Amino acid sequence: MKEITLKNLTLVLDTLAICEKYTNACHVLNYDEETICPKKAMENQGETISFLSNKAFELTKSDDFVNAANYLYEHRDELDYEDKVLAEGLRRNYMRTRNISVEQDLEFSKIFNKAFVDWLEAKNKADFSIFKDSLNKVRETQLEQFELSDYDGERPKTAYNALLDAYERGVTTDEIDMAFNAFKERITPLLSKIKSSKKKIRTDFLSREVTDEQQRRMAEYLLDVIHFDKSRGAITTTEHPFTDNLAKDDARITTHYYPTAFTSSMFSVIHEGGHALFMQLQPEEDYPHFNNDSQSMAMHESVSRFYENRIGRSREFIHLIFPKCKEIFPQVFSDVTEEEFYEAINVVEPSLIRTEADEFTYTFHIIIRYELEKALVDGNMPIDDKLPERWNDLYEKYLGIRPSNDKEGLLQDVHWASGFGYFQAYAIGNMYNAMYYNKMKEDIDISKAISEGDFDLINGWMAEHVFKKANYLAPMDWIKDITGREFTPDDFLDYLTDKYTRLYEI
Amino acid sequence: MKEITLKNLTLVLDTLAICEKYTNACHVLNYDEETICPKKAMENQGETISFLSNKAFELTKSDDFVNAANYLYEHRDELDYEDKVLAEGLRRNYMRTRNISVEQDLEFSKIFNKAFVDWLEAKNKADFSIFKDSLNKVRETQLEQFELSDYDGERPKTAYNALLDAYERGVTTDEIDMAFNAFKERITPLLSKIKSSKKKIRTDFLSREVTDEQQRRMAEYLLDVIHFDKSRGAITTTEHPFTDNLAKDDARITTHYYPTAFTSSMFSVIHEGGHALFMQLQPEEDYPHFNNDSQSMAMHESVSRFYENRIGRSREFIHLIFPKCKEIFPQVFSDVTEEEFYEAINVVEPSLIRTEADEFTYTFHIIIRYELEKALVDGNMPIDDKLPERWNDLYEKYLGIRPSNDKEGLLQDVHWASGFGYFQAYAIGNMYNAMYYNKMKEDIDISKAISEGDFDLINGWMAEHVFKKANYLAPMDWIKDITGREFTPDDFLDYLTDKYTRLYEI
Repeated sequence: MKEITLKNLTLVLDTLAICEKYTNACHVLNYDEETICPKKAMENQGETISFLSNKAFELTKSDDFVNAANYLYEHRDELDYEDKVLAEGLRRNYMRTRNISVEQDLEFSKIFNKAFVDWLEAKNKADFSIFKDSLNKVRETQLEQFELSDYDGERPKTAYNALLDAYERGVTTDEIDMAFNAFKERITPLLSKIKSSKKKIRTDFLSREVTDEQQRRMAEYLLDVIHFDKSRGAITTTEHPFTDNLAKDDARITTHYYPTAFTSSMFSVIHEGGHALFMQLQPEEDYPHFNNDSQSMAMHESVSRFYENRIGRSREFIHLIFPKCKEIFPQVFSDVTEEEFYEAINVVEPSLIRTEADEFTYTFHIIIRYELEKALVDGNMPIDDKLPERWNDLYEKYLGIRPSNDKEGLLQDVHWASGFGYFQAYAIGNMYNAMYYNKMKEDIDISKAISEGDFDLINGWMAEHVFKKANYLAPMDWIKDITGREFTPDDFLDYLTDKYTRLYEI
Repeated sequence: MKEITLKNLTLVLDTLAICEKYTNACHVLNYDEETICPKKAMENQGETISFLSNKAFELTKSDDFVNAANYLYEHRDELDYEDKVLAEGLRRNYMRTRNISVEQDLEFSKIFNKAFVDWLEAKNKADFSIFKDSLNKVRETQLEQFELSDYDGERPKTAYNALLDAYERGVTTDEIDMAFNAFKERITPLLSKIKSSKKKIRTDFLSREVTDEQQRRMAEYLLDVIHFDKSRGAITTTEHPFTDNLAKDDARITTHYYPTAFTSSMFSVIHEGGHALFMQLQPEEDYPHFNNDSQSMAMHESVSRFYENRIGRSREFIHLIFPKCKEIFPQVFSDVTEEEFYEAINVVEPSLIRTEADEFTYTFHIIIRYELEKALVDGNMPIDDKLPERWNDLYEKYLGIRPSNDKEGLLQDVHWASGFGYFQAYAIGNMYNAMYYNKMKEDIDISKAISEGDFDLINGWMAEHVFKKANYLAPMDWIKDITGREFTPDDFLDYLTDKYTRLYEI
């Protein structure tokens, strides 16, 4: 490497190492705010987060850093592969934000923090009007950010496409519309059939009362089963479960304990545990190049939902954990068979809360939010007192049920406080994992591995094929690299059709 | 105020507002590290804390700030009282640290962070040798800091006096030796009498098994009883309970739940709750002057131990909470009277763990640590493999019992990881609160207030007399201001003598 290239690379890496300290602090403060921070301290803590993230932003806006990063981008062919990827990522980021001043960045950040606090209050009071102004500001901010953004290549056609691109580089509404249309076409008629199926599935025992202590034991057990490394991660409780990677050796997850819905925590733990495994199994050698946080959101949701559904809701997994379930929850399982438990956790029942939805109807929740988001961002649909009704109408259209208040309606999820564009990730993720599940099946006996609890084998395959290149390839290239095929929703739709046709004997 | 004075004041206040953001972040990260941060992430998180606290330090080292602060100090008579106190505090701080560079500060900070991680591992493994090197470095650092420090007035005679001064401005080993000698003289013979007393106190029920859930309910109840404001504070669990004031509206406490020692959490919650009340009842008008964090450690421990012991272990308080105790822990109290519970929580029994010690023998734990600290800091006693033995010898001397390992010996408390000089605060605090308790008794009927749960009255008195001037006066001036008398250990010794002579009928 030329001396000047090395000098610029060193400057960039050193600056990013300082940024990482600010980012680490922001993650911890954010995790704290979402888990334990007292109500009246939240706004102040949010301001501290804005202040610190703005400090990191300021470092990347300095002339020295910008010049060095742009030099690296222009001379990227002289760089090692890892640093080339880094230089390209920095360039995209630079273009996206070069018209945004340090002061503007701080203002934007405050708007999102305020939105979080307002959303929380609105949700607690089941009253969208409390969140309405903040949500309008969030949209204004995202539209302004789109106006200010630059791109080296083609500019996204619309603001919503730009948001998609930020979460899922290179993906546009074209791909998502295609996937969602295919979903609706095949799954809607199947849902009708299931609704009118004669199959009786017992679910009475799912609402039997359990203690928090029992659920805590179960959560610890499940994390051990999937080989979550507790010395490099932690678990606590929040109403809305999530995962955050606070630092290299610090993947935190949260769950919630409902006294009469013990499976809710079980599957949220496996879901969030999947996210955490993705983080914990990042290749060590990538850290010095700052590429370990480059996975797309749909890549991430593909992994979490792989563990939650493809593994967690499989017949083999239930076989594996059933003895422990009986031991921890004796009052629940005294008169329940393994097969009954498997069927119960796969029952199809249109419901209002996305995170509690069954695997089969889950995608409808995403489609609803996606259609609304497109209309809000690109269609200029007003964010007013009628928005809850429009939300409720879509639930009636796709799932045949209607929320009775805003808390079980459009306020259920935190994401809008951070802006639009995320939700597609959950659905596209399912489609990715169905594709790589089929590839994995060629290499290993998944069924045997699950029923024997051989997570070294499963996690090892995932690390090698799924995790490793996630930091380097754009999503559609990545899935093609893993599977040898172009992205398609078909694997997922085949899987759903097959599994639920059998289950409901239709 | 002259224009130039105002300009300097504005610069100082604006800079301190930025420092406060860094400090807020450090507190949150520290709280996180002590409560939930995974083991392998601690060192990195400690480095982030060092980085951020160093950023704040750097701001106070800038020429602009130093000049403005020194200008204010020189012209302090032009300032309002609150700002004058601030200017004097900044001046002391400036003198103490003016020979320490930003780089040195960062190095020091890393040493203390490393010491925390090493202490934790050493304690978990009950092996002092793991902590030994770090403790040596902590001592070296504190001695070096003393060498580097300047004072406007008289320089403390020894390094240990400088440490005392940092925690307890103006207090020296002279006062503490006097107080501890008086304690030993009066309490040692009384302890012998108690040991040979024929009085039978029932304690069997204190070790009856309870659930975490029950203890959590009790903790929430006790916090409500003393009027802890949950919208401006939080509670979680750690092995070593503590309180931290993360921000103006954010006083956090921790406790621990032992299944067969439920009173341990009860009294730790009241103790930490006392610290939190001190923070939550700070005068609103002091915040803009940045004086709200100026209480001495003994002032703080005086308050926490006032709530824990003078209130919490009183006959009246047991009367107040007994019905709820029976409701929450029915399996414990089925055959126990109110009087039996009162006696049980006041039983005198020399023990190894300070935080679990009874009120009567508690001060011996402090005297032991204090005598050892003086020898370590000023007497150059070696920090080597013999130190645990020297610790154990002192327990044998004063309490007649001997730790069987380092975990129940010198590793029990976290404080040494942050350096020496803190422990006296716990004992001096008891002496302060005995003095102001006697003053309070002249103003209000404490007995009636406690038994009726009138904490508005008690907390109101505390806020007015104890909390308000804590930010403005040096400890010995403060206690004189409250009580009209010079500091004396006699009120505390009288109280102990009276209470325990009655209880043990000696």
